[in-house]
Amino acid sequence: MQSITCSAPVNIAVVKYWGKRDETLILPTNSSLSVTLHQQQMCATTTVAASPQFTTDRMWLNGTEENLQTPRLQNVLKEIRRRAEHLQNGVGGSKLHICSKNNFPTAAGLASSAAGYACLVYALAKLYHVEGDISEIARQGSGSACRSVYGGFVEWSLGEAADGSDSLAHQVAPETHWPELHVLVLVVSGKKKHIGSTAGMQTSVLTSALMQHRIKRVVPARMNEMRQAILDKDFQTFSELTIKDSNSMHAVCLDTYPPVTYMTDVSRDITRMVHAINQHYKANKVAYTFDAGPNACLYVCQRDVPMVISLIQHFFPPTDQSETFIQGLSFLNNLLHAESCDVDGAVRYAIPLSPQPGGVQYVIHTAVGPGPQVLPEASSLLGQDGLPTT
Amino acid sequence: MQSITCSAPVNIAVVKYWGKRDETLILPTNSSLSVTLHQQQMCATTTVAASPQFTTDRMWLNGTEENLQTPRLQNVLKEIRRRAEHLQNGVGGSKLHICSKNNFPTAAGLASSAAGYACLVYALAKLYHVEGDISEIARQGSGSACRSVYGGFVEWSLGEAADGSDSLAHQVAPETHWPELHVLVLVVSGKKKHIGSTAGMQTSVLTSALMQHRIKRVVPARMNEMRQAILDKDFQTFSELTIKDSNSMHAVCLDTYPPVTYMTDVSRDITRMVHAINQHYKANKVAYTFDAGPNACLYVCQRDVPMVISLIQHFFPPTDQSETFIQGLSFLNNLLHAESCDVDGAVRYAIPLSPQPGGVQYVIHTAVGPGPQVLPEASSLLGQDGLPTT
Repeated sequence: MQSITCSAPVNIAVVKYWGKRDETLILPTNSSLSVTLHQQQMCATTTVAASPQFTTDRMWLNGTEENLQTPRLQNVLKEIRRRAEHLQNGVGGSKLHICSKNNFPTAAGLASSAAGYACLVYALAKLYHVEGDISEIARQGSGSACRSVYGGFVEWSLGEAADGSDSLAHQVAPETHWPELHVLVLVVSGKKKHIGSTAGMQTSVLTSALMQHRIKRVVPARMNEMRQAILDKDFQTFSELTIKDSNSMHAVCLDTYPPVTYMTDVSRDITRMVHAINQHYKANKVAYTFDAGPNACLYVCQRDVPMVISLIQHFFPPTDQSETFIQGLSFLNNLLHAESCDVDGAVRYAIPLSPQPGGVQYVIHTAVGPGPQVLPEASSLLGQDGLPTT
Repeated sequence: MQSITCSAPVNIAVVKYWGKRDETLILPTNSSLSVTLHQQQMCATTTVAASPQFTTDRMWLNGTEENLQTPRLQNVLKEIRRRAEHLQNGVGGSKLHICSKNNFPTAAGLASSAAGYACLVYALAKLYHVEGDISEIARQGSGSACRSVYGGFVEWSLGEAADGSDSLAHQVAPETHWPELHVLVLVVSGKKKHIGSTAGMQTSVLTSALMQHRIKRVVPARMNEMRQAILDKDFQTFSELTIKDSNSMHAVCLDTYPPVTYMTDVSRDITRMVHAINQHYKANKVAYTFDAGPNACLYVCQRDVPMVISLIQHFFPPTDQSETFIQGLSFLNNLLHAESCDVDGAVRYAIPLSPQPGGVQYVIHTAVGPGPQVLPEASSLLGQDGLPTT
């Protein structure tokens, strides 16, 4: 049995992917740009193993065996095997066992499919010794997965070719480029989202009258501005563009028939808190962005993280005194537990909200991170028998 | 003392007014189209009186004396007096006392300023014997007030002239044209809206990247379709366009920086209920539209009103067994109290919501109605002394 174990990151778009021009190849209607989050806090881990003794391809996801016969998984396997055909990798004819898990709740709507597909494709590429860009393959699993193939700041170019060969991801800046940029993921309590992103964006393409303007005029200009803001480490511009593009995507969702809505009253109160903070300080301290769910992702400069966390704790306090309300980068907890963070008391009064206990379930504090990694053999999720270890 | 008392209706736009190209003259960025609601359920009532013995212009609104020195009120008074200048009406030089009230809660965000300004202008025109179109004057008090000057289905044309002389309202069809069209106003519980429509639309004009597309491309086409749907009494098209335009306006609000949001989780659940009903019956039975607040206005054909009301009562039941949960056109109450309305039980199961007691405060059931009316002298809100009677 040959096997390899890898991890891959979550990415959060700051210029959003919303809409496909080709459903099978997963070609988008507009370019997008994302920040790769650090895998220490959030990642998918996948072990892929090939053995002549396996009788069939099998896959386990977060402990449960899953059906591999989905078009997207089959497209990914077919494409990786096609690229590996001419290679002497010794595993060409073997069946695969795949075992994958996330270190964060899958159901939380935290871009788990992007990390999952990027991880699967990266691990398979290593197993089969496939070289070169693999974002095109990851894209066919889940569109935004192509951006999780790289670390730092990543652009997914729209492309022009009908076969998708130029609809690829590439790195705009590495993870070391802007270390001050931190990320707070606010997991918002709430029911399951009422419509998945695949169905939602299909309906938007078919029915939204505003969408064509977004993809043809708004996004192309914003991509250029965003790329430059990142290269300049210009947080003022970066945060304004991030907020605007999130709202633009959700505006298109609302303009869809029937409308698609992901943000809840708590989501909106988080946006109000952010705008009130930025207004109070007369400078952007925080940016928010929302994907196809109610969770907020906040971008904050490291020096302002204690201020923002203390405000989250004030306005969205946990209902139990759980130690795990703030998760992730830990140096902060010391600061916060000591209640020593130098929060300007006045900012609290500038925020037009009443505290909502339980509105936010927990917060993951993380930063910009690298792309997929090969993990030591000891991390394998599959035992010598090719079955999940747990 | 000469006095006159009038009433004027609320109107609810089905193609929305959102954005001014001239703040002082109140000239819009796009044409709009509305339905005038019946005054039996919702109206403003205004008495205007002129007397040489009055020493100053005074105004009372819902029992409280208000400042008349606002630019909008002054513009309206100045314009009406200018038009009356050459007329022999006997009140030219006199000061005015104005007393106005609504028969519905002002704070509920139910287009009270439209009814109020239309009523004021209509009453003043009668007092001063000003003839001809008065929508241009009402418009200068509150943009959408110009549509409350007429009954039935009313279009407010964008116009082209810089002085606003062609930005007028006119009737598309009279109130007798489509008697089957009924209206349910769902007053949604909730805090005060966080930003007024005047400030909200100003910010949209300045910052929304999608708005230009809405006003230049989407609305002009939709106005033509909507006008025709009304003339054809085509509820399928009317309802789809109404829903789409409401969501389009709120999409522009969300695309504003900072974003402007009026709909709450309850508002959105009402939209989900409506789409589920329409999907269940495989035909549009209900349309929703939202103005600058969380309240829903539903358009329903008369025969379907019992079904819709029974579903509202099921999914948004009152927290107390108030007799006044359903207000307005009363024939219905008999039907509903007898629980005899022939609601297909299956539709309930097709609606993906849990009942939310108290989500809707009350429902006003009304229909399409006529324009402003002159009321008998006995309705006067001012006594012989020129002061409010209550």
